[in-house]
Amino acid sequence: MSRARSLWGWGWADRFPDDDARRGLAAHAGAILGIEPPALRAPPTLETIRIPEPALAPPAALAPFCSAARLDRAMHTHGKSYRDVVRAFTGDFSGAPDFVAYPRDEADVAAVLAWGAAERVAIIPFGGGTSVVGGVERPAGAWRAAVPLDLCALDRIVEIDATSRAARIQAGATGPRLEEQLAGKGLTLRHYPQSFEHSTLGGWIATRAGGHFATLYTHIDDLLESVRMVTPKGVFETRRLPASGAGPAPDRLVLGSEGILGVIVEAWMRVRPRPRFRASASVRFDDFAGGARGARAIAQAGLYPSNCRLLDPREAMMSGVPADGGAVLLLAFESADHSMRPWIDRAVAVATAEGGTCAGAKEKTDERGGDASTEAWRQAFIDAPYLQSALVSLGVIADTFETACTWDRFEALHARVRRDVEDAMGRVCGGGSLTCRFTHVYPDGPAPYFTFVAPGRPGEELTQWAEIKRVAMNALVECGATITHHHAVGRMHRPGYEREVPPLFIASLRATKAVLDPAGVLNPGVLLDP
Amino acid sequence: MSRARSLWGWGWADRFPDDDARRGLAAHAGAILGIEPPALRAPPTLETIRIPEPALAPPAALAPFCSAARLDRAMHTHGKSYRDVVRAFTGDFSGAPDFVAYPRDEADVAAVLAWGAAERVAIIPFGGGTSVVGGVERPAGAWRAAVPLDLCALDRIVEIDATSRAARIQAGATGPRLEEQLAGKGLTLRHYPQSFEHSTLGGWIATRAGGHFATLYTHIDDLLESVRMVTPKGVFETRRLPASGAGPAPDRLVLGSEGILGVIVEAWMRVRPRPRFRASASVRFDDFAGGARGARAIAQAGLYPSNCRLLDPREAMMSGVPADGGAVLLLAFESADHSMRPWIDRAVAVATAEGGTCAGAKEKTDERGGDASTEAWRQAFIDAPYLQSALVSLGVIADTFETACTWDRFEALHARVRRDVEDAMGRVCGGGSLTCRFTHVYPDGPAPYFTFVAPGRPGEELTQWAEIKRVAMNALVECGATITHHHAVGRMHRPGYEREVPPLFIASLRATKAVLDPAGVLNPGVLLDP
Repeated sequence: MSRARSLWGWGWADRFPDDDARRGLAAHAGAILGIEPPALRAPPTLETIRIPEPALAPPAALAPFCSAARLDRAMHTHGKSYRDVVRAFTGDFSGAPDFVAYPRDEADVAAVLAWGAAERVAIIPFGGGTSVVGGVERPAGAWRAAVPLDLCALDRIVEIDATSRAARIQAGATGPRLEEQLAGKGLTLRHYPQSFEHSTLGGWIATRAGGHFATLYTHIDDLLESVRMVTPKGVFETRRLPASGAGPAPDRLVLGSEGILGVIVEAWMRVRPRPRFRASASVRFDDFAGGARGARAIAQAGLYPSNCRLLDPREAMMSGVPADGGAVLLLAFESADHSMRPWIDRAVAVATAEGGTCAGAKEKTDERGGDASTEAWRQAFIDAPYLQSALVSLGVIADTFETACTWDRFEALHARVRRDVEDAMGRVCGGGSLTCRFTHVYPDGPAPYFTFVAPGRPGEELTQWAEIKRVAMNALVECGATITHHHAVGRMHRPGYEREVPPLFIASLRATKAVLDPAGVLNPGVLLDP
Repeated sequence: MSRARSLWGWGWADRFPDDDARRGLAAHAGAILGIEPPALRAPPTLETIRIPEPALAPPAALAPFCSAARLDRAMHTHGKSYRDVVRAFTGDFSGAPDFVAYPRDEADVAAVLAWGAAERVAIIPFGGGTSVVGGVERPAGAWRAAVPLDLCALDRIVEIDATSRAARIQAGATGPRLEEQLAGKGLTLRHYPQSFEHSTLGGWIATRAGGHFATLYTHIDDLLESVRMVTPKGVFETRRLPASGAGPAPDRLVLGSEGILGVIVEAWMRVRPRPRFRASASVRFDDFAGGARGARAIAQAGLYPSNCRLLDPREAMMSGVPADGGAVLLLAFESADHSMRPWIDRAVAVATAEGGTCAGAKEKTDERGGDASTEAWRQAFIDAPYLQSALVSLGVIADTFETACTWDRFEALHARVRRDVEDAMGRVCGGGSLTCRFTHVYPDGPAPYFTFVAPGRPGEELTQWAEIKRVAMNALVECGATITHHHAVGRMHRPGYEREVPPLFIASLRATKAVLDPAGVLNPGVLLDP
């Protein structure tokens, strides 16, 4: 009936390539990595996975909205990091939760929290389950049980204020689900993280998700007008306001709280009419450093393109964007109100003044799509996590990490990441490929996004991957960049996070958690060392 | 030698009008309020003010950078709210601090905090002293003494990163002081609150100041890249980053903390080149409601004007903006990079489609100034606080309050504020004038700014004012608006603040304060009930 999600990999199960397609991918990966095409391995099934018996059954009061079915438990065991996909692919579901709660309303959420606090059961707020940082997994420690609180039943748009262009949306709505409800009113949130198909509004808020816009209001932080969160100590709801100067912003405590302070149940979000004008262009640079200068000039010109993505030569090639061995800067502007011709023309002029070449900008009205390079890139962007899962099935190590730093530090950061990650891949995998793009640009710095692919040794991939990830995290922290621009902290990035933020801030956050979640049952081990 | 600030009123002492000018103002105020021109009263002098003896002298370790001189104590007794100016004008300096600390460096700041915690002395972080919400006054409670910590000696730009367009600036720098240092490099912060002449970077950050830009990045929050704060428990310093998704943002705990968590000592701020292109226009509407529709349409069009100020008919008249009995929307765009012609033309088209009329937009390059209406308004804006002080000297009640709300609530809010404030002025003053303008507009709502002027009865002005202020605050809170868009909370707005933000947020903030300032000596009574 409803389309099934993969038991182990990214997204829809029916998107997993068949054996012919996988053989093609294996040949391609072999060519890129300079190895024999890796062998096809069979994915696990619900029958073959190794999953422990639950330690605890749902109590009677919660039973009506809980499930201890094998499939439900399996589907809530892992997030979608490389590590998660590998563990799931190899049938390791040892961290399965004891049962899953599917609250029907806010009262159910509160009931689960109260029960968890009374019984010493860890509660894991769960949206789309797409965390790539260990944000939704069973915590270590002396918990009697672990129960994901899956908000999928709370997926409605409750109210629309067309005058203020805002919508009250339940936290469990996925990207497509909330967009389909807004579309009927001619509105859109236009927040498209790569996980859009499956991730949820609540998850975006909890992890400070980054949208696909390269500049201006793109983080979910910017789109949030007010938020409602259920905590073990009661409801934490902020006021609908376009802006306020009253004390430290309460919303900003919820944004990025990653499920450790409460369960986000709904939010008023700023929405907008669907764009009618779309202007786009691609600008070629001889190398990535030249492209970075072009991207910086545009970011500092006050033009605010919706797309300002810089692809290094290999990223461009792998995304199917013609670049002739150079780097490519993809530019786009969009508006529901007016032609963006003057904007794109000025952006192209700024980029070409920095040494880029451009075949010309084009603008389309009232229809989807920009120039061919933009379209090629968009498809590659959406397909990337499916590709990662397919590579895992071939034993290839493939992962991404992202950051942000000020412009003055970018060159040193890029050189250091290249050196350390390529060195690590050489040491533990015998080689590999590292590429870089900018996903977002700010007046004071870019958000570089790195992808690495390396040959894995069957059964040792996670050890190999852990070493590469370790040196990458260390390079980011030591170069003054952030441990994460939009992937969140979870458990995986905590060592970097603890070096990035002031120790007194960690102490403050711990004190806040003690106020809102005194039993400490909410997502233990995320953000804070428990 | 150096220009003296007024002992009791706003700004420079030499800006206080002479008796002839005051007689003219009295005639004008009388005409507006329908009363006899009020009598001139003589301002206080350092000799006539009533100021108590200090309870405590500076300890030897702090003495080298402290002063107990009568003038220093007097200049740190009051902020610049209407209430402060009236109290000071009438010679009431009963809340004078015991002495004033002028730290020479960060070590001095830490020394004062340690001494305050050990000796139970309240420490009041002090920038320009321009708080209009009771943010810099002596706290109530069992304190052995109260000591303002005035950061005026820390006023340098320490470092400029031209590549990332950022500058490391000490917190005690006033607007003119930091702009003069940036100007040498062709850069500017372009943050112009009305208090610009005297307020400081640290004060802006502590109070989440709003700049003069009507849209886009205008709050000091948006311009801050990282911040360094000295707390009683050590230094709290965030990392220089253009953006980050790592947990709740540590910067956002400092922004709006109003001196209760620590003393902001410096910050990396996003700066920009000076604008070269300035386009402006004024659009007339028959009434304020029509103008509000025009302002909303522009705010939702994605054009982001630097100025989008709507003046109601009386505001327009009082600001010297020709409007012929109608409301006026002042529009401007600026850029260092490109002509803003397409932007201003589209904004004018949007406004006229909503019923406005416009004589045409103009653009100037490489010189100061926009159209005549914009210039008239700018001068009135800068002069307003001087005018308020002059009115106080005549016994006229004159004050402002500001807020923000979503567009759907604006009409009801405006009607309610009009009704309640005009009713209160009638009851306690026998009449008065209330006007409104928009200072900032957002896609989801405006920031209305209200000014009221009413005849005071000598010696009873503060009681009269308190009743008007009470009904105004109550109306804002009950209509779902914020208690402050950019004036901060301080002590004065705390009753409204406590109704606006979630009680669990107040509890969290209290827990955070207990971590950073366990002795509770920092600005007691601000934001939190001590």
